[in-house]
Amino acid sequence: MTNKVNAYGAMSSTTPLEPLVIERRDVGEHDVQLDIKYSGVCHSDIHMTRDEWGFNSIYPMVPGHEIVGVVTQVGTNVHQFKIGDVVGVGVMVGSCQKCTPCTNGHEQYCEQDFIGTYGVKDIYHNNEITHGGYSNSIVVDEKFVLYIPQPLLPKLNAVAPLLCAGITTWSPLNHWKVGGSHTVGVIGLGGLGHMAIKFARALGAHVVAITTSIDKIADAKKLGAHEVLLSNNPDEIKKYTTKFDFLLNTVPHSHNISQYVNLLKLDGVMVIVGALVPLDGLNGAELLSHRRVVTGSAIGGIKETREMLDFCAKHDILPDVELIKMEEINTAYTRMINGDVKYRFVIEMN
Amino acid sequence: MTNKVNAYGAMSSTTPLEPLVIERRDVGEHDVQLDIKYSGVCHSDIHMTRDEWGFNSIYPMVPGHEIVGVVTQVGTNVHQFKIGDVVGVGVMVGSCQKCTPCTNGHEQYCEQDFIGTYGVKDIYHNNEITHGGYSNSIVVDEKFVLYIPQPLLPKLNAVAPLLCAGITTWSPLNHWKVGGSHTVGVIGLGGLGHMAIKFARALGAHVVAITTSIDKIADAKKLGAHEVLLSNNPDEIKKYTTKFDFLLNTVPHSHNISQYVNLLKLDGVMVIVGALVPLDGLNGAELLSHRRVVTGSAIGGIKETREMLDFCAKHDILPDVELIKMEEINTAYTRMINGDVKYRFVIEMN
Repeated sequence: MTNKVNAYGAMSSTTPLEPLVIERRDVGEHDVQLDIKYSGVCHSDIHMTRDEWGFNSIYPMVPGHEIVGVVTQVGTNVHQFKIGDVVGVGVMVGSCQKCTPCTNGHEQYCEQDFIGTYGVKDIYHNNEITHGGYSNSIVVDEKFVLYIPQPLLPKLNAVAPLLCAGITTWSPLNHWKVGGSHTVGVIGLGGLGHMAIKFARALGAHVVAITTSIDKIADAKKLGAHEVLLSNNPDEIKKYTTKFDFLLNTVPHSHNISQYVNLLKLDGVMVIVGALVPLDGLNGAELLSHRRVVTGSAIGGIKETREMLDFCAKHDILPDVELIKMEEINTAYTRMINGDVKYRFVIEMN
Repeated sequence: MTNKVNAYGAMSSTTPLEPLVIERRDVGEHDVQLDIKYSGVCHSDIHMTRDEWGFNSIYPMVPGHEIVGVVTQVGTNVHQFKIGDVVGVGVMVGSCQKCTPCTNGHEQYCEQDFIGTYGVKDIYHNNEITHGGYSNSIVVDEKFVLYIPQPLLPKLNAVAPLLCAGITTWSPLNHWKVGGSHTVGVIGLGGLGHMAIKFARALGAHVVAITTSIDKIADAKKLGAHEVLLSNNPDEIKKYTTKFDFLLNTVPHSHNISQYVNLLKLDGVMVIVGALVPLDGLNGAELLSHRRVVTGSAIGGIKETREMLDFCAKHDILPDVELIKMEEINTAYTRMINGDVKYRFVIEMN
């Protein structure tokens, strides 16, 4: 059995998003159904609807993997949630639950591949194609539903981006134990970067925003950066050489990493979270002269996402968002491509 | 005061090595003088004498940074060594001794730069130009002299390469805590690679030699590899995808790292120790899909070198060497370039 749900999505890689009707499965015994109240707009939504990563996108595609809503129905075997709870759903709606990464709480590295919230075949639910948050409701296995802590409820319209931009930047800071004694650079000041600055600051680090844009200096400081490094100024880059313990690289496109690698001190770590593409400028000498680490990180596990939400509640951390209506989504995409958003669009659902 | 010493070295980047007379300083209060008995021949000796790394080599250049000899004189303030001790000298003969890396036993990452055993200006000793092990004797600060453990003395002619090839492969295995539960790949089967196989095996890991050469299968197994992966066979590469916890990449030239990165499992680590040059094939998606780490490692600290020598003594680990006379050095270089050495030349001094 399925239910018809209003949504917005792409019918092909070259057409704008438009109103659609999709089908959602009935609530199964382990499922939670929610009325979607807010859906964050992630840059990857643009890449995916336009098939820019070569993943052979499946159409119609309803994007959205930063979802906040209210529980309207629960399955007979659901224990964590009840009707009326305010909950979130992020980038994943399924995983094998059996492999080592899954049993260690790293569902995002599931050896069978996790099930993305939209645009993939859900092998654990009759191969249905998943559809995301640009819609009125969704049905999700409770294992992938997250309770929104009470202190965040008064600002609920800003919570959704935590489920992707938040956890994607939190997870590497957490994994590499970034803290008070560290100098942390955040490269790029978009949806991910602005969250990383807030987290790193709250973790007690000395935070340097690294950007090419002189216009962003004041904003970066307002977000919590102690300093701003203009990466297109060779003198500034030179001044900061070997000064960083940790760099979070949120640049979403291919680029030359050499100038950033050289900012790392002995045993410094640069984590790539934005660019799922080839990168230039790796040099063996630059790695081995300071035992520098270049690595990547993908979103975060469910347990880690819960911890991140609790941290946000405790430290009053939320993304800066601009609310839009569903029908404004195509304009929003254009503005995102032009870097014209501070720092995340959130769709307010009716 | 200085002393004249017979040596072999290069007068320019384009001439073969030839007999030279060099000057060594008198033994200072912290110095140890040794009669050199054996000097290992490292591939970097070729790069340096021919200035192939663009370091502006200083001529005449006397290479050699894998030195074993007998103490013939000690300074008034030397406490660790006495005349007659059998000792070694590796890649470093000085460092600032004050910075954080130095005080933590990581002299190879000295913030002032360590003093190389040959071919550099020694700022701690009147800016003298250092000369290496292709000579009859050397004078070195005792902090950079290593006691050769007694169990290694009966095979002294094979010990010298431990001071570079040995510590360079030991240090990353030690730093990343490689041990019994790990599947370890050793990429490249030369001077470094053959040591890495022996160490990884003795540490209890499951060891896979990764080579392009079908001829090396039997040898790799004799050295201790449990398996051999032929990296120019796409089917074999595919079979080993996400199978490795740790890869030690000893390839000494620029290459595409992508096929190796994809061999790493979740949180797997590849350490570059051979290629001090630009590397191709880094891809953000390949890093972040399994949180893979690409890093480098440079030789090792003095304390770590002592530990490595003790480990070799305990586990009876020594490089496979071919002994040569000093006047055979140019032929040896040609054979090394052709990959015709198993696995390290050692010069037997008169």
